[in-house]
Amino acid sequence: MLPYRLTATQATALIARRELSCEELACSCLDRIEDRDPLVRAWAYVDRDKAIQKARALDNGSARGPLHGLPVGIKDIIATCDMPTSHNSPLYAGHQPSEDASCVAVIRSSGGIVLGKTETVEFASGGRTAPTRNPQDLLHTPGGSSSGSAAAVADMHVPLAIGTQTGGSVIRPAAFTGIYGFKPTHGLVSYAGARTVASSLDTIGWFARTAEDLLILAGSFRLPEAERPAPLAHIRIGICRGPMWAHTGSGARAAVDAAANRLADAGCAVKEIELAPGFDQLSDAAYQVAAWEARPAFLADCLRFGTQLSPVFHEKVEQAQRISSADAGRAYDVLAACRPAFDANFDTAGIDAILTPSAVGEAPEGLHETGDAILNTLWTALHTPCLAMPVGRGERGLPLGIQIIGQRFADVRLIHVATAIAPALGIAS
Amino acid sequence: MLPYRLTATQATALIARRELSCEELACSCLDRIEDRDPLVRAWAYVDRDKAIQKARALDNGSARGPLHGLPVGIKDIIATCDMPTSHNSPLYAGHQPSEDASCVAVIRSSGGIVLGKTETVEFASGGRTAPTRNPQDLLHTPGGSSSGSAAAVADMHVPLAIGTQTGGSVIRPAAFTGIYGFKPTHGLVSYAGARTVASSLDTIGWFARTAEDLLILAGSFRLPEAERPAPLAHIRIGICRGPMWAHTGSGARAAVDAAANRLADAGCAVKEIELAPGFDQLSDAAYQVAAWEARPAFLADCLRFGTQLSPVFHEKVEQAQRISSADAGRAYDVLAACRPAFDANFDTAGIDAILTPSAVGEAPEGLHETGDAILNTLWTALHTPCLAMPVGRGERGLPLGIQIIGQRFADVRLIHVATAIAPALGIAS
Repeated sequence: MLPYRLTATQATALIARRELSCEELACSCLDRIEDRDPLVRAWAYVDRDKAIQKARALDNGSARGPLHGLPVGIKDIIATCDMPTSHNSPLYAGHQPSEDASCVAVIRSSGGIVLGKTETVEFASGGRTAPTRNPQDLLHTPGGSSSGSAAAVADMHVPLAIGTQTGGSVIRPAAFTGIYGFKPTHGLVSYAGARTVASSLDTIGWFARTAEDLLILAGSFRLPEAERPAPLAHIRIGICRGPMWAHTGSGARAAVDAAANRLADAGCAVKEIELAPGFDQLSDAAYQVAAWEARPAFLADCLRFGTQLSPVFHEKVEQAQRISSADAGRAYDVLAACRPAFDANFDTAGIDAILTPSAVGEAPEGLHETGDAILNTLWTALHTPCLAMPVGRGERGLPLGIQIIGQRFADVRLIHVATAIAPALGIAS
Repeated sequence: MLPYRLTATQATALIARRELSCEELACSCLDRIEDRDPLVRAWAYVDRDKAIQKARALDNGSARGPLHGLPVGIKDIIATCDMPTSHNSPLYAGHQPSEDASCVAVIRSSGGIVLGKTETVEFASGGRTAPTRNPQDLLHTPGGSSSGSAAAVADMHVPLAIGTQTGGSVIRPAAFTGIYGFKPTHGLVSYAGARTVASSLDTIGWFARTAEDLLILAGSFRLPEAERPAPLAHIRIGICRGPMWAHTGSGARAAVDAAANRLADAGCAVKEIELAPGFDQLSDAAYQVAAWEARPAFLADCLRFGTQLSPVFHEKVEQAQRISSADAGRAYDVLAACRPAFDANFDTAGIDAILTPSAVGEAPEGLHETGDAILNTLWTALHTPCLAMPVGRGERGLPLGIQIIGQRFADVRLIHVATAIAPALGIAS
C-alpha cells in the first residue's frame, strides 16, 4: 500500500517493525499533497523541508512517542512557532507566532510531524470561508470551520489533523467528507494558543480515518483512562432524536435508522431516549452564550484594526452589547443545569452512548456556505464528547454521518464504543 | 502633586485640560520605578524608551482613548509583543511573544502605555515566588501570584496594573498591599494570551488606587453597562461570614465588622446572609476542579521540557491523573449548581453586594509564601465579580481588606457600589 493511504495505527505498526521509515511516510504524504492540493486546497501552508528534516531526526533518534513519525495537519487558527498562523484573515497574513499552541506542543513532543497549516473559515467564526473543496465532490463544501483539516484527512494527505469546534466545526466537516471526527469534553484538551471564538464552548478536536487512530491521540493528550465497554453484544445505544430532529433531512434520519438497525442486528440494545423538557431551551441558550462571548473574543481586534477588520466581527461585538446581563446569566444557567441532567441519562437509561445525526444532510453545493451546525451546537454546549462516524451516503452520493455522544470526561470510553460498533456498521474501526 | 502620585482619574483630568502631558506622567512613573524598584522589586522588565516614545506619540496625536496616557503594568504571564514574557520560569527567560494578549491589545488600543512586566509566582501557579516585597513593609510578601502588579500600584509606580486570578491572586495581593483590586465575572474579559492555570477559573483582574479608576478600565473593556445603584443611604449590604469564616483571623473579622458598622451608621441596610447548605462543598469542589484542570494546563510543558521543568508542575499533572472522571464531573456540577443559587441571593435577600474579608489577615512575613487563598477560591469558582477595598489595618500595622461580591455580569454595578460606599468607609473612592 502506498504509505499516504495508511491509517495512523497501520503506519505506527510498520514504523515500529522498521518496514517503513518516518521519512518515507512524510514524503509520501507530501507528494500526495503536491498532487492533490491544487484541486482540494486543504492547505494554507506546507513546509516540506522542515517535515522531512523532522522525519529524518525521528528515524535516527531514540525517542519514541505515541505519535512517532505520524504526519499531522493543524488548523490555521492554532499557533505554530515555525509556520505562519493566518486565521484566514488578511490582517494576519504571514503572522508568525513565537510559540506553539499547547496542543501542537503535545503533538510534537509525542513524535508527530506537523506538515503544515490547514484552511479555516476566518477566525473559525465568520467572514471569509476556506477555499477548500470536498474531496468527495469538488463542487461541494467540506463543511467548516475546520474545512482544511477534514479535507486533508479525507483525501489522505495526512492520517491525522487537528481542528476546533465551537458549534459544529469538527463533527460537521467530518460527516461531509466521510471520516471520523472527535470533539473531546470541553476543557480536557488545552485550548491555549488557539484563537478564541466563545471561550466556554471552544474545543480542540481531531480528525482521523479510523476510531483506533483517535485512541492514539487520546493517549498522547493523556485523556483519562476508561474501562473498555462490554463486547459488542452488550453495548447499549440510546437513540436521541432530540429537539433538532425536525431540522434533519430524510437522508440523515435514514442513516441513523439504518445504523440503529444494524446495531440491533449485531445484538446491541438500542432504545429511544427523550431529553427532559428543559432541553427545549438548550439550543437557544447555546447560541446566546456564543453571541455574548463574542465581545471578549473579538473586542481587541475591533479596537486594534478598526475598519480594516471585516464588519462581520464588529457586528458580533455590537450584537453582544445588545444582550442584557440578565439574559446572558439565564442562558449560562440553562446550559449549566442541562449538563448534569444530560449526563444522568447514561446511568438512568443504562446506555453507553447516544446515537444522533452528525449534520442535517449531505454537504451543500458551493464553497460559500459550510452548512448548518444545528445538530452540533447543543452537544458542544453540553460539553460532552462527540464522535462522528462515516456511515451512509445520501441521494447525491455524498457522505452522511452519525455521531455518538458520551458522558462528560468519559471520552476514551466513547472512542472504545466507536471501535466496537464500527464493524457492525460496516466501516473501518 | 508629583505626577506619579496621581490616580488614573486625576491624571486623565489633568491630561484632558493639558495641564499634564502623557510624557511628563510616564517619566514621573519611570523615575519612581528607578527610585523605588531596587527595594520593592515589582518589575521583571521595564522599557523606558518605548514608554516615553509612546507617550510622545499620544501627546502629538489626535486619537484619545479612555486610558489616554495612563501608565500600566502587566503581569509577566501575559503576552506582550514588544517585551519578554517570562512567567518567572527559567525556561521562558527572555521569551518574546509575537503578539499582545487580548487584554494588552485592549489597553494599548485604549491609549494605555505599558511600562513593563510585573513579577509573578512561576506560571501564576507554584514553584518560584516573585522577588517582590510589600511596599507597606519590605520584610513581608505582597501576596501572589500577581505580586508585582499589586506592589507597583501600591507603591505608586503606575496608577493601574493587570493581574490574573485563578484562586485569590488579585484580591489577596490587593488586600496585603492596601489597594483596590477587581476580578471581573469569569469570561467577561478575554484571557487569550495569558498563561492557562485552570481554564474554568482563570480570570484577568485589575489593580488601582481608587474605585473610580476601576470604572475607567471597565469602560475600556466594554463591560456591560449597569444602572448606578441607589444613593448611599439606600444601598443594601449582605454580610456573608460564609463557610470560610472559621479560617479568618480576628483582625480580618474586626475589619469586616467595623466596615459593616460604618455602613450602617451611614444609613445602608446591612444584614447577615447565609449561604445555602450545598455551599459547604464549594471550596473542596473548586480545589478539585483546579487540580483536574492542571493536566491540560501543564501537560505540554511537562512533555516539552521534561526534567528541566520544575517537579512542581509534573506533580500537578500526576495529581490530576489520580482524580477520577466521576469525581471531577461531580466537582464541576457542584460549582455549576452553586452559581445560579448564589446569584439568587441578591434578589431574594434584596442586597446590592456581599461584604466579606479579602484575606485571612495581614501579609505574612517573608517572601517564600504568598498567603492563603481560602477566602477567595470560592468566589472565583462562583465566577462572580469580586472587588477588594483597602479598609483597616491589623495589629502589625499592615493593611487588611474587605471585598465586596456582586452578581455575575453585574460588574459595573459592583464598582458603582464601591465608589458609593468608599467615603463612608473613610477611603478614597
